[in-house]
Amino acid sequence: MRIVVDVMGGDHGCEVVIGGVKQALEEDASLTELFLVGKEDEVGAAIKNLGLRDPRVKVVHASEVLTMEDKPVVGLRRKKDCSIARAVEIVKEGRADAIISPGNTGGVVAASTIKLRPLPGVERPAIATVIPAQENEFVLLDAGANVECRPMHLMQYAIMGSVYSREILGYPKPRVGILSVGTEDVKGNDLTLEAFKLCKQVEINFIGNVEGHDLFANHVDVVVCDGFVGNVVLKTCEGMAMSMFRWLKQEFMKTPVRQAGAWLAREAFLTIKRRVDSDTYGGAPLLGLNGVVTIAHGSAREAAIKNAIRHTGRAFNNRINQIITAEVARANARLSCRAAEAPAPS
Amino acid sequence: MRIVVDVMGGDHGCEVVIGGVKQALEEDASLTELFLVGKEDEVGAAIKNLGLRDPRVKVVHASEVLTMEDKPVVGLRRKKDCSIARAVEIVKEGRADAIISPGNTGGVVAASTIKLRPLPGVERPAIATVIPAQENEFVLLDAGANVECRPMHLMQYAIMGSVYSREILGYPKPRVGILSVGTEDVKGNDLTLEAFKLCKQVEINFIGNVEGHDLFANHVDVVVCDGFVGNVVLKTCEGMAMSMFRWLKQEFMKTPVRQAGAWLAREAFLTIKRRVDSDTYGGAPLLGLNGVVTIAHGSAREAAIKNAIRHTGRAFNNRINQIITAEVARANARLSCRAAEAPAPS
Repeated sequence: MRIVVDVMGGDHGCEVVIGGVKQALEEDASLTELFLVGKEDEVGAAIKNLGLRDPRVKVVHASEVLTMEDKPVVGLRRKKDCSIARAVEIVKEGRADAIISPGNTGGVVAASTIKLRPLPGVERPAIATVIPAQENEFVLLDAGANVECRPMHLMQYAIMGSVYSREILGYPKPRVGILSVGTEDVKGNDLTLEAFKLCKQVEINFIGNVEGHDLFANHVDVVVCDGFVGNVVLKTCEGMAMSMFRWLKQEFMKTPVRQAGAWLAREAFLTIKRRVDSDTYGGAPLLGLNGVVTIAHGSAREAAIKNAIRHTGRAFNNRINQIITAEVARANARLSCRAAEAPAPS
Repeated sequence: MRIVVDVMGGDHGCEVVIGGVKQALEEDASLTELFLVGKEDEVGAAIKNLGLRDPRVKVVHASEVLTMEDKPVVGLRRKKDCSIARAVEIVKEGRADAIISPGNTGGVVAASTIKLRPLPGVERPAIATVIPAQENEFVLLDAGANVECRPMHLMQYAIMGSVYSREILGYPKPRVGILSVGTEDVKGNDLTLEAFKLCKQVEINFIGNVEGHDLFANHVDVVVCDGFVGNVVLKTCEGMAMSMFRWLKQEFMKTPVRQAGAWLAREAFLTIKRRVDSDTYGGAPLLGLNGVVTIAHGSAREAAIKNAIRHTGRAFNNRINQIITAEVARANARLSCRAAEAPAPS
């Protein structure tokens, strides 16, 4: 497998990203080529510091970086030679199979969408984030690629998330729900009410609306929403988990007895912490494009990058793009047949 | 103060709600009249069981109940004699100052909005939920009254939330943020981007956009969003907190050592649990109407109902409706002046 890594744009500099690449190369013999895209001098220095000597590594120079301050589309127009654009081009030219970037999320979405184009029949790509709960892992999508959605987009997210949950996470018949303000069919806003009607007609295990209460209660495996809601929910969960652990820690420190208790029970906390660790997946796939794209966390360290490379490889090897294309085509056909069969409004 | 309680529609039946009323009457001498609205026979039986003998209590019969399955507006039209409609009428007729209901949220919003009407200048009421974090309590609004919002609504929520935070929670200069997908001014969807421009122009301590990460990090005191996003976020937080505690408990039970540790550290958990307990407020105010309206949790037990009565009393005594009316009028005037001053598009 041939992977491109945009090594610029992560919060900790390119050496941390390349450190993750080094670990992945050491562990994964199926990697046949690995392109590192970024400023040549910085990348060269990092490679030297890390003692990375591997014939599979190719450095590709890009003189610019899309920063968090850049507006995605405007930034891409101004910074023609930025690392994310160059990285995507390598996949577009067929020289690599997949791309990983820890940079500006909007920039990765825009560059990938413009250059790789959506899969046939897919209207918009979606960021699919895997969120661990106690008894299952659910996929939330869209987590922020597309903040203004139409019902058709949500229906397609339901299919893409279903494919991802089945093919990558191993849920044989993933339960798909639309995130809404109540579980009853009539609850929701205009977008979710219309999307509900579409989802009912396609071949997924659609369980209807789900609420915030359901997410962590093993009621649903694929949670569908627009990119605004998904991004807000994802960050709220991350922020709340972090703050709960911080708060507990401070409460434990208040007396020696509590400290001792927390020390005795520490394995319980560590079990949960390990399970909710964002490094496990290292990033989120951008589903629905001609090419496998993974958006790594800006804060990704070595282990996260290594895991992102591994999961990106799985997505490629499991041919999820071909499966998504086939299932979306079938759903689109079914919906247009139904629309044609429906009596014309009199 | 004269309060109406819609005693039907709570998850635990009317006796639990009336039990909470009894506790409030025992503790609060400022309550001069308390109307219990519901099915006469059930209310009578509950009063008898509880040994509630208080001359301030008046029972008002309503033969129907709006259930969770009823669509709010349709249900209100069909069930003319439902308890929530009758309860609101008592406030409308000036016989009481405030109303509390643990029933169908959509029904409470619809009945109150239709019968009491919004305050002068206010376009839509909003449910303002107080969410406890480690270092502060923030108000999230709208938590579900209005799932399709316009920018003007969000601006008015910002003012109403600001007044509530200042007058009821005691934050002298509450920090107001719009919940969005990034803190930069340019991040958001069409609704939040437009609302951002309006909020910048009015007299609040507007700190711009906030993300999910900011909510529990003491960055913001008033979080503004549409009712769809707010409801999803609120329920996600509730669900996640519950699941974290349940998960911890299960991990603790796995070995005797962990159990012992958890027991020693139990005060740390209890401190947090007490603080995040939804009974503290017992309900959320529906702000922006001619009348003080509190939506209690459907699952509210006695303590929650008692607290809901206490907080409803505070909102009434602090005259927050008069303050909201004045501040919204000033903001509306300022925005229409600005609009008039702006050069006409050529």
